Amino acid sequence: MTQLSRLPQWQALEAERHALAGFHLRAAFAGDAGRHARFARHLSVGGTRVLLDLSKHRIETRTLELLLELAEARALRARIDAMFSGERINTTEQRAVLHVVLRDLSPRPVRVDGADVKPEVISVRDRMLDLAERVRDGRWTGHTGARITDVVNLGIGGSDLGPQMMTVALAPYHDGPRVHFVSNVDPEHLRSTLVGLDPKTTLFIVASKTFTTIETMTNARAARSWLVKGLGAETATARHFVALSTNANDVAAFGVAPANMFEFWDWVGGRYSLWSSIGLPIAIAIGRERFLQMLAGAHAMDEHFRTAEFAQNLPVLMGLVGVWYVNFWGAASQSIAPYSQHLARFAAHLQQLDMESNGKRVNLEGEVVDHETGPVIWGEPGTNGQHAYFQLLQQGPALIPVDFIVAAQSPFADDAQHRILVANCFAQSATLAVGKTADEARAEMIASGKSEPEARRLAPHREFPGNRPSSTILVLRFDPFTLGLLTALYEHKVFVQGAIWGINSFDQWGVELGKQIATKLADALGDPKAPLDAASTGIVGAWREMRGAK
Amino acid sequence: MTQLSRLPQWQALEAERHALAGFHLRAAFAGDAGRHARFARHLSVGGTRVLLDLSKHRIETRTLELLLELAEARALRARIDAMFSGERINTTEQRAVLHVVLRDLSPRPVRVDGADVKPEVISVRDRMLDLAERVRDGRWTGHTGARITDVVNLGIGGSDLGPQMMTVALAPYHDGPRVHFVSNVDPEHLRSTLVGLDPKTTLFIVASKTFTTIETMTNARAARSWLVKGLGAETATARHFVALSTNANDVAAFGVAPANMFEFWDWVGGRYSLWSSIGLPIAIAIGRERFLQMLAGAHAMDEHFRTAEFAQNLPVLMGLVGVWYVNFWGAASQSIAPYSQHLARFAAHLQQLDMESNGKRVNLEGEVVDHETGPVIWGEPGTNGQHAYFQLLQQGPALIPVDFIVAAQSPFADDAQHRILVANCFAQSATLAVGKTADEARAEMIASGKSEPEARRLAPHREFPGNRPSSTILVLRFDPFTLGLLTALYEHKVFVQGAIWGINSFDQWGVELGKQIATKLADALGDPKAPLDAASTGIVGAWREMRGAK
Repeated sequence: MTQLSRLPQWQALEAERHALAGFHLRAAFAGDAGRHARFARHLSVGGTRVLLDLSKHRIETRTLELLLELAEARALRARIDAMFSGERINTTEQRAVLHVVLRDLSPRPVRVDGADVKPEVISVRDRMLDLAERVRDGRWTGHTGARITDVVNLGIGGSDLGPQMMTVALAPYHDGPRVHFVSNVDPEHLRSTLVGLDPKTTLFIVASKTFTTIETMTNARAARSWLVKGLGAETATARHFVALSTNANDVAAFGVAPANMFEFWDWVGGRYSLWSSIGLPIAIAIGRERFLQMLAGAHAMDEHFRTAEFAQNLPVLMGLVGVWYVNFWGAASQSIAPYSQHLARFAAHLQQLDMESNGKRVNLEGEVVDHETGPVIWGEPGTNGQHAYFQLLQQGPALIPVDFIVAAQSPFADDAQHRILVANCFAQSATLAVGKTADEARAEMIASGKSEPEARRLAPHREFPGNRPSSTILVLRFDPFTLGLLTALYEHKVFVQGAIWGINSFDQWGVELGKQIATKLADALGDPKAPLDAASTGIVGAWREMRGAK
Repeated sequence: MTQLSRLPQWQALEAERHALAGFHLRAAFAGDAGRHARFARHLSVGGTRVLLDLSKHRIETRTLELLLELAEARALRARIDAMFSGERINTTEQRAVLHVVLRDLSPRPVRVDGADVKPEVISVRDRMLDLAERVRDGRWTGHTGARITDVVNLGIGGSDLGPQMMTVALAPYHDGPRVHFVSNVDPEHLRSTLVGLDPKTTLFIVASKTFTTIETMTNARAARSWLVKGLGAETATARHFVALSTNANDVAAFGVAPANMFEFWDWVGGRYSLWSSIGLPIAIAIGRERFLQMLAGAHAMDEHFRTAEFAQNLPVLMGLVGVWYVNFWGAASQSIAPYSQHLARFAAHLQQLDMESNGKRVNLEGEVVDHETGPVIWGEPGTNGQHAYFQLLQQGPALIPVDFIVAAQSPFADDAQHRILVANCFAQSATLAVGKTADEARAEMIASGKSEPEARRLAPHREFPGNRPSSTILVLRFDPFTLGLLTALYEHKVFVQGAIWGINSFDQWGVELGKQIATKLADALGDPKAPLDAASTGIVGAWREMRGAK
């Protein structure tokens, strides 16, 4: 593959970057009343309204055109079609990438190696949602016949972050048992979660495709001990554990009935799996109908992504604007600011989604790339971040683009308090863009009574450089449909960037090696005579010694 | 002030950076069995053991020497002494910076403008801890005489992140009422927290220095309505609200008795305030004795910072190593990986602490600096991050230093599961440092049955470049003393970096402006005829229109 930097479209963007060296968003807005209209995309996606406002970016019309030309040069359309048609685009694992099928509620066949995967998808989903409904309405009972009040999901990575993010995000729609998430192998995570839970009324979900993930299986065994001890019967396991896995043998050996194992497929990556059986905790929290609405929202975004022209295509535009900053302006990170407390885990989910997908330095041909790839993704819900790290976004030296995500309506009655929330969101993006000059800061201080010399001394500290870019995504409200849509939007944004960079967004060898080495080292820590690598000898010795200390 | 980059010590470090261009941690460990011993600092701080392992950094002995020379050139020792002696080092607000006094349990006087501040500190702390104990043991009752079961802290920024981080971190030591934190002005944050709480047994803490913070006061008024409605008496407020504030008039007008207002001082910044009255929710959760242990741990770190020679000084070394990556290797972010689920909010606290302190582009003299300053701080607890974004840390193109934080002992019985946790931590730092060559990856695949051409094709994808730096901080266990110590360690690390960069780490004008503008815009959103700035007109129009949509 030609290295990206040699492409004429890439070089045109480098020239554009230089042409915009003197660009400032303050001047851009002041000189152009039509700027918002030109760079905002007001769309209807699956019948719901979505606004993507790109007006606060360091772009002109020409910039977007050049970015769209880069997308053409990288054959983005063909890549999208390859994914949707079930080609094995995950080339290092020789797998198709078909999480989009999980949310396509139509009977339209999708073939992998000639066989339609839809019937199996529908069958497993029906079984999974049936279980969720039985747990919710009390037809499923525990070993003693008591109804389930608490569900504990045991999983890590994609078997935790996706379902947890979505469950937390949809808190206003919960009407089932309480749902808890335990991921960490730190024994404190499970122990502190079980405080106050009753084995009689607790159901565990063991979410591990292979049923060998060390964290998850360690917690599963500890949970089973707690349960069996509490109920005094080994056989209780069958009524208190279900499994999301493909390893039927180990699941049965653990004590889970085959009917309570829900499989998924090798064409569903962990970070894209909340739409599969891995979504069971979500379904238990919100119920079948809302779960299906969530899938429908994601599917609406899939259809938008698959069919909309690139100039009106939300994931394509967001992906390209991200590339613009990562590769041409040196942005090393992207901040996510959802203005909703329930989206507290959205950034953590995107961290996995984006950084596990595009944190790669080798392209599809196995060459080391000559450019940056995935940025660091981070953020806390607004308005909280404003009282903390927004200092650095506003006045630090670095360029960090922000995604503001906000809903026009509150899930309950629209009220004055929600308006304050929205005002904060819009105020931050405006301040980042426009800033405040030292002259303005000085004049303000003099007006409020500061002396001229003092105002002059302080002005540089109270100057805001502005010209700091952000997207604003405005949706109607954060309901199941819209959360499905938003999550799929980011999935496809990541896809777009992977396609531009020419990397495989669907493997994760960097995660696999960690698992391998930790298992080896855990054995070695138990055996003082085990040989250790040069980088570990010192720290392990210190640990051994401190472990025995008072 | 001389711009940093003109200092000979800075230029010597630039030369050192070039001299280390071919440095690789794999070779460094292979060629030097004494590397760990050379770069690990095994210390006793306040009687507890702490290990800082710097061996997995791109440094040689000379590098550390040069960094220490930079610290001398920036008069770090004098800066430290100026803080501890109460000088007004926050020069843009003309304030002393004395959070260290809050944890100095000795009667030794500390003077600001000639007056000893200690007596007042001790008096307020005694009153605050006395309240905590009365709430805990039931002497404090609600309006109906019922005992308090739930405490809700209403605060944002430093009045939320610090106490929340510490309360969550010390979960194994909780033996008081449940403590909740509501920060966001999103009405859903308060509403969803109050679900299941009983006004009769709920105590609210309103934490706002000025008692005017819009988020906090909006939530406080909503909470008061909920309470008064639930108990049917306006006068109930006095038994269910206390205030952490300095605004006695507004506090009284709100309905809080003067005896239940706990003040703090203008020499305590928000992000350093958990040691003050702002720590009340921590004290209610863990009690007086453990709260004092937490202070003692922080004070032990203060004494270490103030007195230890720089070559053995933990905050100095951590700060300098951070500067090394930010300014000489282009690292834009720093990942924090605490191997403890209870430290889930540690990175969020450090985000505020670090980014609000050092996210500045202007030095003490008001000149725009010619170098980067504070990095983005981000992270999730290990082992969770390993299954997600560690992909990018291991195999992405960017350089991102990691702080691994781990305890040798579990708070409960030391067990096999805790050993797996520790093994994961050490395995990640070793893999980041040493990596895996393409040859090793190929040989492994062939050994496991892959064909030669397939192994050759996949090897670049399964290669780990290594040479990725990390610190490991190993402590005995995460108890109140150690958490105090660790938190103070990071406070002083931030101080060191601010001193090197020559910026004021103690103001936050970037946060202040956001508050100002949001208030103005919230008014404008309520009035369709209000004038709007050019950058806001478009998005506000879209919001108005979508707000009325179905």
